[in-house]
This record gives sequence, C-alpha cells and structure tokens, in this order.
Amino acid sequence: MANEKFSTTLGIFGNQSDRWCNCGYKEDKTVEDLFDAASKVESLDGVELFGTWHINEDNVDKVRGLLEKHNFEVSTVIVDLFVNPVFGNGAIASMDPEVRQKAVEDIKKSMDMAVQLNCDLLDIWPGQDGYDYPFQVNYTKAWDLMIDSMAECADHNRDVRLALEYKIREPRNRLYIATVGKALAFIEKLGRENVGVTVDVGHGFFAYENVAETIALCKFYGDRLFHMHFNDNYAFADDDLIVGATHMQDYLEILYWLKKTGYNGWYSLDQFPYRDDGIGSCRESIAMLKAVIEAVESVDEKDIESVITEGDATRSIALIRKILFKK
Amino acid sequence: MANEKFSTTLGIFGNQSDRWCNCGYKEDKTVEDLFDAASKVESLDGVELFGTWHINEDNVDKVRGLLEKHNFEVSTVIVDLFVNPVFGNGAIASMDPEVRQKAVEDIKKSMDMAVQLNCDLLDIWPGQDGYDYPFQVNYTKAWDLMIDSMAECADHNRDVRLALEYKIREPRNRLYIATVGKALAFIEKLGRENVGVTVDVGHGFFAYENVAETIALCKFYGDRLFHMHFNDNYAFADDDLIVGATHMQDYLEILYWLKKTGYNGWYSLDQFPYRDDGIGSCRESIAMLKAVIEAVESVDEKDIESVITEGDATRSIALIRKILFKK
Amino acid sequence: MANEKFSTTLGIFGNQSDRWCNCGYKEDKTVEDLFDAASKVESLDGVELFGTWHINEDNVDKVRGLLEKHNFEVSTVIVDLFVNPVFGNGAIASMDPEVRQKAVEDIKKSMDMAVQLNCDLLDIWPGQDGYDYPFQVNYTKAWDLMIDSMAECADHNRDVRLALEYKIREPRNRLYIATVGKALAFIEKLGRENVGVTVDVGHGFFAYENVAETIALCKFYGDRLFHMHFNDNYAFADDDLIVGATHMQDYLEILYWLKKTGYNGWYSLDQFPYRDDGIGSCRESIAMLKAVIEAVESVDEKDIESVITEGDATRSIALIRKILFKK
Amino acid sequence: MANEKFSTTLGIFGNQSDRWCNCGYKEDKTVEDLFDAASKVESLDGVELFGTWHINEDNVDKVRGLLEKHNFEVSTVIVDLFVNPVFGNGAIASMDPEVRQKAVEDIKKSMDMAVQLNCDLLDIWPGQDGYDYPFQVNYTKAWDLMIDSMAECADHNRDVRLALEYKIREPRNRLYIATVGKALAFIEKLGRENVGVTVDVGHGFFAYENVAETIALCKFYGDRLFHMHFNDNYAFADDDLIVGATHMQDYLEILYWLKKTGYNGWYSLDQFPYRDDGIGSCRESIAMLKAVIEAVESVDEKDIESVITEGDATRSIALIRKILFKK
Repeated sequence: MANEKFSTTLGIFGNQSDRWCNCGYKEDKTVEDLFDAASKVESLDGVELFGTWHINEDNVDKVRGLLEKHNFEVSTVIVDLFVNPVFGNGAIASMDPEVRQKAVEDIKKSMDMAVQLNCDLLDIWPGQDGYDYPFQVNYTKAWDLMIDSMAECADHNRDVRLALEYKIREPRNRLYIATVGKALAFIEKLGRENVGVTVDVGHGFFAYENVAETIALCKFYGDRLFHMHFNDNYAFADDDLIVGATHMQDYLEILYWLKKTGYNGWYSLDQFPYRDDGIGSCRESIAMLKAVIEAVESVDEKDIESVITEGDATRSIALIRKILFKK
Repeated sequence: MANEKFSTTLGIFGNQSDRWCNCGYKEDKTVEDLFDAASKVESLDGVELFGTWHINEDNVDKVRGLLEKHNFEVSTVIVDLFVNPVFGNGAIASMDPEVRQKAVEDIKKSMDMAVQLNCDLLDIWPGQDGYDYPFQVNYTKAWDLMIDSMAECADHNRDVRLALEYKIREPRNRLYIATVGKALAFIEKLGRENVGVTVDVGHGFFAYENVAETIALCKFYGDRLFHMHFNDNYAFADDDLIVGATHMQDYLEILYWLKKTGYNGWYSLDQFPYRDDGIGSCRESIAMLKAVIEAVESVDEKDIESVITEGDATRSIALIRKILFKK
Repeated sequence: MANEKFSTTLGIFGNQSDRWCNCGYKEDKTVEDLFDAASKVESLDGVELFGTWHINEDNVDKVRGLLEKHNFEVSTVIVDLFVNPVFGNGAIASMDPEVRQKAVEDIKKSMDMAVQLNCDLLDIWPGQDGYDYPFQVNYTKAWDLMIDSMAECADHNRDVRLALEYKIREPRNRLYIATVGKALAFIEKLGRENVGVTVDVGHGFFAYENVAETIALCKFYGDRLFHMHFNDNYAFADDDLIVGATHMQDYLEILYWLKKTGYNGWYSLDQFPYRDDGIGSCRESIAMLKAVIEAVESVDEKDIESVITEGDATRSIALIRKILFKK
Repeated sequence: MANEKFSTTLGIFGNQSDRWCNCGYKEDKTVEDLFDAASKVESLDGVELFGTWHINEDNVDKVRGLLEKHNFEVSTVIVDLFVNPVFGNGAIASMDPEVRQKAVEDIKKSMDMAVQLNCDLLDIWPGQDGYDYPFQVNYTKAWDLMIDSMAECADHNRDVRLALEYKIREPRNRLYIATVGKALAFIEKLGRENVGVTVDVGHGFFAYENVAETIALCKFYGDRLFHMHFNDNYAFADDDLIVGATHMQDYLEILYWLKKTGYNGWYSLDQFPYRDDGIGSCRESIAMLKAVIEAVESVDEKDIESVITEGDATRSIALIRKILFKK
C-alpha cells in the first residue's frame, strides 16, 4: 500500500447547520475541541483550516501550537469567500469594487498565513460568485473581473499555489466556475503557473462528470490537479456524505487514475455529517478510501491497462467484479 | 379576473440562512416586523404561520391582534417538524417512540391553535422523515409508523384538514413522502377524509413532475388538493425563487388546471429570497401570478379545451404563443 | 447461495438501434439465432418473449419447440404497446377508442399465449402512454381510460398476473405511470388482485428512487412486486447498461431487500448492449448479480438487521465496507 | 425587427425513429420530398444538409439544383460521424487509426462539398466519441487524438469554419466534448482560428448551462460562436422539441445575448418531431422565435442593460414580466 496522506476540513468535527435547522443539529465547538476530535482519528495526517473560522491574523500562533501538539500538517487554507455575508452577492467577481478588493486582500492575507504555517496551498472556492436569475448579470464582465482578481492573487506570491474549486450550483443557483471544463478554460486564459484545480469529487458527481476523466483532463492541461476533496452524494446536490455511500465504481476508477497520473497531493475530506458522529464519519471515510485503494492495487496494473486499452465493455465489468469480489 | 386569495409564509420577509451563511444574509426580525412588512404588500390576503417561530401556545392572543390589525387571514399553520433539532432523525416516522409522540402532540396542538385563529388547514411537511444512507432504515416499518401517526392526528379533529406536503429530498437525502404518487398512495391507505395534499410547485418541478398533471391527479383521487405553494427553481433543488424565474409554460398550464379542477384554496407563496428584498419578492411573485392568470384567461376556454382534446403538439405550441404573445 | 432464477429479454442478443443509428450497430438475427445465443449463457433459466417480435399467434408452436430444445422457461411475455407505430400516441390511454381497444385486445391475446407457454406473468409497459407538451392532454381522462383498460384485461383471466412497469420518461417526454408511487396509487384504485408491479431498477434509478425502498413499498401495499428487471444507468436516462456499471451500493441493498421481503419471482435482465457483445453482456450481468448476492449473504443477517434498526450512518458505511471488502 | 436568417435541418420533415420504433412513426421520404416540405415553410432561408443522408459526392449537382429551385442557402453541412455504424465506437477519437482517418477524410470531403455549395460552415458533432463504462477508455489519449484530428481538418482549408457541437451524453453515456467549458478549453489548446462552437440550446439545457451565459462565454473566448441550434427539452435529455415547449425565460435571455454579443450567424432548428407534423413543427418554432425576438426588442435596450448592471433579482423578474406581459 502506497503512502497517501489523509486530511480533512476541521468542520467535519463541529456543529453544522442547514437552511432549516440554523442552530445546527449538535453543540458548537471551539477550535481546541475540533483539534482534539481530529486527534482521535488514526491515519489523519493533516487538516484544512478555514480562514476566519479556524484561523485568522490574531490566532496564528495558537493554531501553530495546536498543529504541533497534535502533530498535524496544514493541507490547505480555505479562504472565506462564502460565509461572510459581505460576499453574499459575489467575491472575486463582485460588481462592487470594494467588495472585490476585499476578496483579493483576504486571499493574499491567507496566502501569507499559509506560508507561516508551512503550507503552500490555498483552496479558493468562489461559492458566491454566480447568480440566481435570468437578466441578473453581465457574464463577460464577471469573467473579466475574475481573471483580474485571480491574476493579482497569483502574482502576490508565486510560491503559493492557488487551487480553484469549481462547483455547478449552491449556494447560488448558478456559479461561474461551474465545471472542470470552465475551470481549465479559465486557467488557460489566466496563464499563471501557480493556479490549478481542486477537484471535489462530489461537485463532479452532480455536474454529471466522470471524475476519473476529470482527473485525466487536469493532467492533460499541464499537471493542474492541485488538491482533492473526497465525499459522496446522490448526484443531484452537494450532499457531502461519508465516502462509500453511493459511487463505488467511480471511486475505484478515481483512485486508479490518481495513481496513473502521478498525483502526489493530499487525500482530503470535505463532508457535512449534520446528524452523524464527526469522528466516526472521518474514520469511516478514510477506512473506505484505504479499502478501495487496496482493492484496486490488488489487481495487476497491466491487466487494468489492458482493459482500458481494449475498450470492451464486458471486460470493464469483469474488471470491476474482480476488484470488488476477487472473482 | 377571478378572486384568487393570495397568501405567503411570513418567513419571506425575514432573515434566511443557508448551510454556509448560518447567521443569514440580512438582519433578524420580530414577528411584529414581519407583519409590518407583509402589510406593505398590496393584494396579500393571508399569511402562513410557522409553529414555534411565529406562533406558539403563549402568543396566540398577540398574533390574533396582529392579524386583526393588518387585516390578514391565516391561510395555514405550518407545524415545526423540521427546525427543532429533536426531530433531526425523524418526526412522524421517528423510530424513537417519544420523539414520534411529540410530533403527533405538536400537530394536535397546532390544530387547536389553528381553530383559535379561524383557520381549518394545517400544512404538514415531514421534512426530516427520511434517511441519508443505504442500509439505514426499515422502510416498511417507517410507513407503518407514518400511517399510525397521521391517523391519530386526523382523528383528533375531523374538521381540521391536514395537507401533506411531499418532497423528494432535502434536508434528508431521501424523504419518504417523496412524490405526488407516494402522497396519494399514502392517503388511499390512510383512508381519512380530512387528509389531503399540499402541492409545492417547486417540489414538483425538481421531482420531474408536470405540476398541472399533479393537480389533475389530486382531483382524480377525490378532491385531495388542499393547498398550493408557489415559487420557482431550476429543476434540481428547492431553490424557492420568485415566481417567474424559470417555469413560465408550466405556470400557464398550472393556473389553467387549478381553475379547471375547481380549486378554491389559497394561492400561497413559499420562498427564500436569501439576498433579495422580501417585500419586493412577495410583490413580484403576486404580480407575476396575476399576469399569468390574466393571460391564460384572455384565451377562450373552449379554444384551450379544443387544443387539449385534439392532442396535436403544434397546436399546443401555438396556444402557448397566443397566451403569451397574443399572436 | 439461494436458488434465484435468472432470465433475460431475448433482445439482449440481437441487433439494437438508437435514434441515430437506425439500422443498429450489429447484424439482424432470427428468433432461432436469439435462442441459440441465449443457450450459450450458463445459469440462464428463462427468457422474456416480446410479443410480435419473438412470439405471435402464428409461431407459438415453433417458439414452444425452441423453449423445449434449449430448456428455457418463459419468465414473462412482454406485450408490444410501444414498437408498433399504431400506438405512437398512446395505447391503454389512447384517446382513440379503436387504438385503445386494440391495445386491450393485444394484451388479452398475449395473456392467452402466455398460458399456452406455461407462463402466468405478463409485463405491461405502457411506454407510449404519456405526452410531450404542455396543454396536450386531459390528464384525468387519461387516468380514467387506463383504469378501464387495465380492469378489462385483469378480468379477462384472473389467473394471469399483469405486472405494470412504470417509467418516468422515454419514449414520451412524460409517461403517466411514472413512478412507484403512481403505480401503487393506480393499483389501489384499480382494485384487482392480479395486477402488480414490474420494478425495472434502472427506471427507479433515474426517477431518483431508492429501489430497495421501492421494493419495500411494493411489499407494504400487499405483495405487489411481481417482476424485477435488472440493468444499470447513470441516473439520467434509461441507459440499460450491464449490471455493475455504476450503482453498486444500491444493488447490495436491493438484493438484500428482495430476500427480506420474500420475493420469489424472476431475476431478469432488460439491457441494450448496442455496441457490445450480447452474450458477454448477459453473462457478466448474471455473474455480477451472483457475486453481489454472495457478498451480501456472507454477512450475518442479524448484523445487517441490527444496522438497519439502529440507523447510525457510520455503521451503514461500515456494513457496506464489510460486505464489499471483508474488513 | 432585425433580419435573422432562419434555417433547419432537413430531417425535421422526414421520418424519425427512436430506439423502440425503429422503422419510425411516419413514412420515409426522398431528398426531393424533404425540399418540397421545406419550401412550404415561409421565413425559411436555409437548410442544414446531413452528409451521406442528404448530400454525398455523387449528388452534389442534384442538391445544388434543389437549393436553387427552392431558393435555399446551405446554412451548414453536418458530417456523419454518428449514424454510420463504422463510427459506433468513436470517430475523431477512435482508438482504431483507420476509423479515425476515415473520420478525418469524411470531414475534409464535407468541407470540399460545402465550398461547392457556397457554404463555409461545417457542423462537427462527435456524437460517438465518448464511452459507456468505467475503465473503458484512456482519456488523455482520447483528447490527444481529438486534437490531432481536428488540427488536420482545420488546416485542410482555413477558409472553412468548423463548428464543434458539444453534448454531455447520448448516444454514448458520456461524450468527451461535453460542455461549453470543455469545448472552449479544447479550442484554446487547438489554437486554430477556424474552429469554433455550435451551441445547441437543448444540449446546454440538459447540461445545466444557462445558455445566455454560454453565448457570452463563447464571445469572451474570442468570437467562437459559429452556429446556433434551436429546440427545447425538459432539461434531462435531448428531447429536440419544438421551440417554446418549456424554456421561455431562457429563450428571452438567449435571444437578447445573441444580439448583445453581435452574433450574425444562422438561427437554425435541430428538432425531432417523431409523431408530430414536420412542417408545422418548423413553422411553429420560427413563429415562436420571431415572437420572442419581437417581445425582447419591445423593451428599451437601456432598460435591460440597467437591470443587468444593477443585479437586483426583483428587477430581473419585473423585466421578464414586462417583456412577456407588457405590464
């Protein structure tokens, strides 16, 4: 078994709310509590820190202490472009120059904080950059603004990598950076080496992407796969379920193509176990990922490549049966 | 123009949050503020009161005063089976007998409160009654429990009508009473005259229902359409947008079939204008509904019936063009 | 391992066309060829015969001979209500009384033919009974007609069981008997003991049904599950793929609930391997079904029931891991 | 009213089959019949010719005669990469070098034929270039091959424009050039000025694209919108319905953005009225398009731009009401 490094957003251990149960289904927790919970998960090597919630300019030292105490790396810092209501109508594409500038500054500050925490990777999810109604937006202007914003951030520190996380909808009804195709077209136009993609497998699933193909395409466009988010859903929304709930065959192929394309980044969880035990959800996801990886690796790579090369559907199904059922 | 009675959930005027922006995109409001806002919308005849949020056993008199002051009827009382975290794992189908009994008691209390407010209609949306994962539920047991729960409620007061609101998903990944078909099959099995259906058009849209057909089916199963919720969405989730955002042709046919089947209940809004002006959202929805009703009524009913009877697709399209563009 | 009986539509071995490649991707085959191909699949116990294509009033004896030669049972006879262009605008709900009467007569004749072939089960898929446009149909009239049509067929011979196969769309954009909920509501209204449901798992998948729950619901409404069709798809259309392509976790739970509810009917395939080897597709589907059944049965039923009873999501995931990966 | 040029695929007038009714719901027609039918539609300026069905190397003169007789231009020539079973497993991305070379040669021949017919535009829909199962394809290799194939075609004659038509699925379960994002990323990588995009609005609808935004994006990437296909669907599949069936608000915004971005190409229909009158379907689609264009143009462009600039949802809805209902 190879040496994947596992990580999770800290939020998996906390109190999570939806649009109905605003106060959340559990009790609120402090950052210390979240780290304590994380430390109970064997095999967890890193955590994603969410800007302003988990880390801010005033508590960097404290967080560094918690990281050292629990022996965690920071896999990525997530910039808050979607929780602060100031970004309710957009962040990096906001038509309000002051709001957009704040988004850019917040990204730059997070880049600086990441460096302080020995992390060179930011997750940029422009979740409020989109719209809800017809005739509500000038789309070309929005794309122009996003290019400008991201160029300024990318040039702030070429040694920090910015991983754009695409998503087709939610919280806005339509997001600009909606699919892997749009993400790659955006990056082609941007022309910065330190901007790549976060593939959240769930975002791919409900945009009708085959995530294994998505991973291959990020490779095709020049090693643009910077980060992976794992979770699961029923292909209609961002359910953020525990890994293993629904997309088994997709996961087999995803984990194969990560190896095949030489991905050496984090295997990180982004999940919302609203009603379910956070520690258990994290444990189960990692146990499932390990089981899938082991099952895929139990079949000779040459056999898998032979199936892929031949393109015979019945052999593809036989391969899936062999991986899962050893027969 | 006929005399439709328009209503809305009070929540449209308040602060609404999603799973990201937990504190909401606006400021919190008191019940008095909500009524004040509602009073600014011309053409609004009634309000839906949400149990525990807007009304409870301690403030019935105060709410009655607000209703009188602003000259509003109560269109329906919505029982809280989905905000209180105690119902996080189910209410009327909860496997915990105490929780299920609380759900039943809460419904009965709401029936009593409704009577005190001259309202004979409850909206029952069992939004937490469902599940998220495979192998998580005994489905037949859940249906048994729901039948028992609803029978007890229905028998509490035969003069109060209970309108079951079906929905295919959210907040649970799968809800039991998911579609109009399941709602009607449930009601057939239940065998109580005072239990019918709330058709939330948006719930229909993202379950791939033609809501006009849904309305007809409620008629076919014995005048089971008790209540209507209007909003709009992009057919993938419960976006709860302003009426008129996307499903224009559906709305033409819906409003025609409401007349055709003799529906004489409320035309009520259930919307979440997270970032948008609540009063404006309410006004625009009613203005759009009125414009659609007027457009449909501008064409001779015999002409419409002739098109429906003949079944020629090109005539259906010509009819839509005539309704919308008068040519 | 239990003694499931496996069956397939004969069409899996033939030349199948789509709306682009009208002539099909392979060579046409005779009925004898189809039986020859079927006989090459080990573990195949029965075949579904498609009325007019595979069997008609003139060739019953010949087909009986082929069945005996190859030692096949007839699992079900499928009535052609969707290939003959005469039914292009509807069959059992056709607004044309002559067409509707022909549909009813065709069903009765197929019931008689089935009896001659020692088969007591008909698959009734009203695939053309629906519509494509708004304002194209009088829905209540259509339901009235369907009730009448099916009642007449059911009463023709109470010893032949009629299994209604629901589907949400295709070839019409909307079909009347769209979901399991509508199918069961229809059957409740019809009130005939010899009318039940065919659950095509693929039809369930792309109607956002959890098919395990669907099976439970058919049980709840009085042992109404008459027949099962197995295939797979990507949850958006009736792809009719080989079993094992995508919905692994669903299949685990489906095959468990078939046992749990005491289903003792056929495990039958309905697939369209347009470009792929028919014999191989059939073999692989059965091999996958057997592997899944064996994996599910490898876990103690008490352990599974304990997980279902408790409702803890992390235990559900652990169970899936145990079934698939033995750890 | 501006001077849009309307066109249609000739197939709209012919016999169209689906995967059930292989022989089609109508009678077969000759090319002469199809042209005769087309000539009955007022306002039709051009036709799309489908390679091998309508035009081939042997009948160019005959077709030119029919075009002159009926005074039609050729809007585009569609290359057959999806009907001929030789391309059943792929055309421009086929892993079989001979098949791929045939695809390239067929495109080149069609380019030459187009020139002979005074047409400088080819529609390239690689409908078979995709896959159906996990572990069936080497994705990066497929993209490499597509880039090579299209480069060779583009360089064959720089004065002929090649319009790539993307589609997310069907007939394959997954197509490589699936979305506008992938199409534009492909074109960026290809680097040929004479390769652009055909936006089939229906393909956009069921890939959850806002087609107005799609049009804007093609503009943003350098005037890459070469051709438009109009039809309608229920957002789940390529229903190819008459314009006006479902997406009214989308059409308002689409036709506005075509003007706003200076699109001066064809307004062409691509529809499958399987059961419906072809001439009527064509007429109604054009009548609806004209009605929509006129309605949008009835509102002052400055007012529309003001709404778009402000981004207030309630004003967007008010604008839709004004366009449709003049109030």
